[in-house]
Amino acid sequence: MLNRLWTLATRPDGEPNTGNFELKTIELTRDPDAGQILVRNRFLSLDPYMRWRMNDAKSYAKPVGLGEVMVGATVGEVIRSNHADFAPGDIVLGGGGWQDLAVLDGKAARKIDDCLPPSTALGILGSPGFTAYAGLMKIGSPKPGETVLVGAATGPVGSMVGQLAKLSGCRAVAIVGGPEKAALAIERFGFDAAVDHGDRNVAAALADACPDGVDVYFENIGGKIFELVLPLLNDFARVPVCGLVSQYNAGDGGPSNIPLAVAMQHVLVKRLTLRGFIITDFSNFLDEFLKMATPLVASGKLVYLEDMVDNLENAPAAFIGLLKGQNIGKVIVRL
Amino acid sequence: MLNRLWTLATRPDGEPNTGNFELKTIELTRDPDAGQILVRNRFLSLDPYMRWRMNDAKSYAKPVGLGEVMVGATVGEVIRSNHADFAPGDIVLGGGGWQDLAVLDGKAARKIDDCLPPSTALGILGSPGFTAYAGLMKIGSPKPGETVLVGAATGPVGSMVGQLAKLSGCRAVAIVGGPEKAALAIERFGFDAAVDHGDRNVAAALADACPDGVDVYFENIGGKIFELVLPLLNDFARVPVCGLVSQYNAGDGGPSNIPLAVAMQHVLVKRLTLRGFIITDFSNFLDEFLKMATPLVASGKLVYLEDMVDNLENAPAAFIGLLKGQNIGKVIVRL
Repeated sequence: MLNRLWTLATRPDGEPNTGNFELKTIELTRDPDAGQILVRNRFLSLDPYMRWRMNDAKSYAKPVGLGEVMVGATVGEVIRSNHADFAPGDIVLGGGGWQDLAVLDGKAARKIDDCLPPSTALGILGSPGFTAYAGLMKIGSPKPGETVLVGAATGPVGSMVGQLAKLSGCRAVAIVGGPEKAALAIERFGFDAAVDHGDRNVAAALADACPDGVDVYFENIGGKIFELVLPLLNDFARVPVCGLVSQYNAGDGGPSNIPLAVAMQHVLVKRLTLRGFIITDFSNFLDEFLKMATPLVASGKLVYLEDMVDNLENAPAAFIGLLKGQNIGKVIVRL
Repeated sequence: MLNRLWTLATRPDGEPNTGNFELKTIELTRDPDAGQILVRNRFLSLDPYMRWRMNDAKSYAKPVGLGEVMVGATVGEVIRSNHADFAPGDIVLGGGGWQDLAVLDGKAARKIDDCLPPSTALGILGSPGFTAYAGLMKIGSPKPGETVLVGAATGPVGSMVGQLAKLSGCRAVAIVGGPEKAALAIERFGFDAAVDHGDRNVAAALADACPDGVDVYFENIGGKIFELVLPLLNDFARVPVCGLVSQYNAGDGGPSNIPLAVAMQHVLVKRLTLRGFIITDFSNFLDEFLKMATPLVASGKLVYLEDMVDNLENAPAAFIGLLKGQNIGKVIVRL
C-alpha cells in the first residue's frame, strides 16, 4: 500500500513555512507486529504544541527528528489487526501522525464511541477538551462567583474552559484575536465578556472586563498578555499554565517583558499559584472527564467548533495558519 | 508609665537608614480596655518583612503609617490584665511592636510554654519556624531522596527548612552569603552542601551542589538567584515563595533579570508549581507544627541560633544589618 507522509525537512527559525515540511510517498510493506494494528487515518488533529516539537530543544516530549513523520493525534479505521481487542472497521483514536496510514501499538490506541461524530475525539472529547477540564477543574479550582479569564478563548481548549467556568458558576472572560472572535466567544460559547488582545488599550479593556479582578487565569498565550494580567490577579489566584502560543515561534521567549523579579513580587504578595501542566499528568482523570462531558456534548449543552481542512496536502498551510490564529475552531485535517 | 517607641519618621528610598526611624518617649496613660492586656516587652523580633511595611504600597498587610510605631512580634510579661485568661506575670507572645510597653487584645496574644527559653517563640517555635514548616511540608511536599535547595539558609526560616528537609530524607543544599555561613549551614544545621551566592561562579556552584537537580526550591531571596536556579529545577519541582529579601530595598524588583516569558517556558515545560504564601494562610496547621517541633527543639534534635541584640535603642541598626545579611541567626532585641 502506498503511504503519503509529511516529514520534517528543516527546523524552522521563528515562524515555520511550508519549506520546513516535505511530503513523501512510500510503499508501506510491513504488516502489524503482534499487538499492533494498521490504521487508515481519517482525521488528523493540528495543535500548537507541534510547533515546539519542531525545535531541537528539551521539552516534555522529544523533538521530531529531521526526515521523520510529523507527530499528531488521529482518528482512523483499523484495516488490519494483530491485537485481540481490535478488528478491521473499528474506529480508533491514536497518535497516527501526518500521514495516510499508521501502524499503532494496540495499547496506545483507544476505540471510540460511535454515537458522536468521531472527530470530537480530537477536540472537545479529546486532548483539547480534557486539557481544559484538567487545567481548570484540577488546578484552577473555580468557585461560584469567581472570575475566570481565558486566553485563546475561541480555540478548542479555551472555548471549553469558558463553558466549564460557566457551568461552575463563574464569570467567564475571553481573550481573543479580533472582533469576530470576540463576538463568537460571547454568542457561541457563552462568555460574559471578551477582550481583543489587539486592542490598543488592552490593559484597560481587561480591567473593564474583570471588575472584580481575576481568580483563575487560564494561560494559553504567554508573552505580553500575562504581564498585563498579573496586576488584575486577586489574592490566592490560580494560574494553570497550559500553553504559551505567542512564544512558540520566538526562541528567546518573545517580546520584551517585565523582569521575572517583578512577577515574583505579585506571586508573593498575592500568594499566587502558577502551575504548568500537560494533559498526560492527569490521565487518571480521563474517565471522570469523559463521563461528565460526553452526555453534555451529546445533548448540545457543551458546544464546539471545527475548522475542517480537506486533504493531507493542506496540513502544513493549515498548521501555519493555526499558529497565526487564522483558524476558527479546532483545526482538523480530513483525509 | 513612660514608654519608648520607635516610629517610622520617613519612608526609605532603597536601603533604609537610621534617619528613617525616630525614638519617642511618651507617657502611657491609658489602661487596658475590657479584653485587653498591658505587656512589658522583653524580646522583640526583627524580620525582613518589616522592610516592606515601611513602603506605602499594596501588600498583604497595610503599611506602617508615618509617625506610627514600627510593627513586630514580641514576647513580654503581662503587667496589667483586663482579660480573664491572663494574669500579671504571664509570659505572652503578641505583636507588641518596637517599644517597651504594649496594649494588646487578649485574643491576639498567646501564653507560651515556659519550659523552653521564651525567645524561641519568636524563632524556631514562632513565625520563622512555622513558616519553614508550612512552606516546605505543605507546599514543597518533599519526598525521600529529593533535593531541597534553600535560600538564606542560615537564617531562622532557612535553617529550619534545611533541618526539616533532612528529617524528610532529602538532600538539603544551602544558599548563603559568605564562607562563614556556608560552614555554619553544614556544621550546625546539617545541610549536605552550601553555595555562597557571592561566588563568582555561583551558577556552576549551584549545579555542582545539586547533581540530581532541584525538586524543591524554597525561595527566600529573589532577584538574580531564582533565575540561576530555574534551569536546575526538575520536572514537577515545587517553589514555595516565602520571601524576596534581595528585592525589598529595590522598588522595581531589583537587578536586571530574565524576562517573565522565559521563566514561564520553564514553568510549562517542566510543569513547575510556584506558590506564594504567608504564614497566616496556614494558621490551621499551627498546633500540628508545635506538636511536632516543640519536643524536637527541647531534645536538641532541631537546633537554632539567635543573634541577640541588647537595648531597644539598637533596633534600627540591627534591622539595617539584618537586611544586609550581617546577622548570624535569628535577630532578637532584648529589652
